[in-house]
Amino acid sequence: MYEKDLSVSLLVDFYGEILTEKQREVINLYYDEDLSLAEIAAEAKITRQGVRDSIKRGEATLHEMEEKLGLAARFSNQKTTVEKISRAAAKIQDINARFRYSGEIGELAAQIQQDAESLNE
Amino acid sequence: MYEKDLSVSLLVDFYGEILTEKQREVINLYYDEDLSLAEIAAEAKITRQGVRDSIKRGEATLHEMEEKLGLAARFSNQKTTVEKISRAAAKIQDINARFRYSGEIGELAAQIQQDAESLNE
Repeated sequence: MYEKDLSVSLLVDFYGEILTEKQREVINLYYDEDLSLAEIAAEAKITRQGVRDSIKRGEATLHEMEEKLGLAARFSNQKTTVEKISRAAAKIQDINARFRYSGEIGELAAQIQQDAESLNE
Repeated sequence: MYEKDLSVSLLVDFYGEILTEKQREVINLYYDEDLSLAEIAAEAKITRQGVRDSIKRGEATLHEMEEKLGLAARFSNQKTTVEKISRAAAKIQDINARFRYSGEIGELAAQIQQDAESLNE
């Protein structure tokens, strides 16, 4: 846990509601707000060791959930495909505009790109 | 639980690994294989009441997970958007083919449609 693992934030996004409120709070302060253990201890009014234990237990729960359900990985794979769709839609708009083919194709491709971006928000 | 709720199968797809093996088995037989409680009891070698309890407990866990995490709803909303993308890509291909605009637009739109369909598989 000392090396701040970016993916913990992703796992919190999926499974955060499974954690206790305290675990969620300290994990948020540690990973998203980038506070030190000592700073979190001062803020949460618990010992530094208490903060450390809470982060470790929370992380274990998050990893266990992902190991069982794999939903963060499932969404991440989708994200790559959605980005590919978005790029292809942009390219259609480019070609279509360059040769002034069809207003409708331009609109449809723009809509696809917008929808794809909304999926990855 | 007597009215077979289609969405239970969807919840199993997301959270099934959280259930006990027995719960997963009886829920699968009841919702996906469409067996009666009596048939499942015979197959699983437990009482009809045991089957009923196992299904109810499993369902409660699935609904509790969805209430907390909302991941099945999140994926379902995406599905609608992805279908919209797929239809728009099909329409681009139609227009493009009708007016013989561009081989590249046709290929890009076909790829978008294929990728969109893979997302919803």
